[in-house]
Amino acid sequence: MLNDEVNFCLRCGSPLSLKRSFGAVRPSCPACGWVYFADPKVAVAAIAERDHQVLLVRRANDPFRGLWTLPAGFVDAGEDPRATIVRECREETGLEVSVSELVDVIAGQEHPRGAHILIVYRVDILSGELRAADDADEIGFFDLQDLPPLAFKSTRQILGLLDP
Amino acid sequence: MLNDEVNFCLRCGSPLSLKRSFGAVRPSCPACGWVYFADPKVAVAAIAERDHQVLLVRRANDPFRGLWTLPAGFVDAGEDPRATIVRECREETGLEVSVSELVDVIAGQEHPRGAHILIVYRVDILSGELRAADDADEIGFFDLQDLPPLAFKSTRQILGLLDP
Repeated sequence: MLNDEVNFCLRCGSPLSLKRSFGAVRPSCPACGWVYFADPKVAVAAIAERDHQVLLVRRANDPFRGLWTLPAGFVDAGEDPRATIVRECREETGLEVSVSELVDVIAGQEHPRGAHILIVYRVDILSGELRAADDADEIGFFDLQDLPPLAFKSTRQILGLLDP
Repeated sequence: MLNDEVNFCLRCGSPLSLKRSFGAVRPSCPACGWVYFADPKVAVAAIAERDHQVLLVRRANDPFRGLWTLPAGFVDAGEDPRATIVRECREETGLEVSVSELVDVIAGQEHPRGAHILIVYRVDILSGELRAADDADEIGFFDLQDLPPLAFKSTRQILGLLDP
């Protein structure tokens, strides 16, 4: 057993073994040659401001249920991260947004189901009516000096970059 | 068969079936509950300039062997992309660099084994002796007006952003 997730070949179902390939030791299939690459989980987050307040959502699901975060979500393979953040804002907040700026790329997984890489965009709010849904059960605009309890270190890091 | 790569459970080896979960239809294991998420392949590329010339490497391997590109490489899960680009510059060019700026995040897979997301950093050259190695078999600094044949659209896109 290699670890608790990577044991059998995704392609042919044979047990995997460890083999050096492409600069690292990777789970590989002795039967069909398939190699497992541990691709990073990528998420996007949005900074949406209105009247010098920042848009936050309260997490409806674990981990960190009840704590607040920026509108955010995972990027699937093949999705443009800019399209992902527009979709996530629509789903979680009811707002239509457009990406105005790439702000940062933050590395580091904060919990076992979390993203390895977080791409942060500033967005402009175009239209829509504020309404929490999907992964969010509450929503609001907050002064940077009066924030609710935050779920992630990365959120604090991002908000620390904003002008008060 | 779901597609030619995703057929069996990575955790328990059972045949997978399609099931709706987390907002999309995903290959899932009826036996142990494991769900396959198609995480994007992430690569990093470096813009390293010296005397208004940009550093390029010639690809030693397919695809696009013999064509030129920026120093670049894949980010494994858990790697900080900034550390990846420092390592790739060292391996491919012999140069020690430090990241000076996040330039862009480019989406779009250019070939079946390519990255879905490319993070582009500007780097400063600190030390080292120019020497092609690893995935590169030739290396050099080029005027933007006199570039060798390039491998990727993204390279042309990135170099188009630079001041001539």
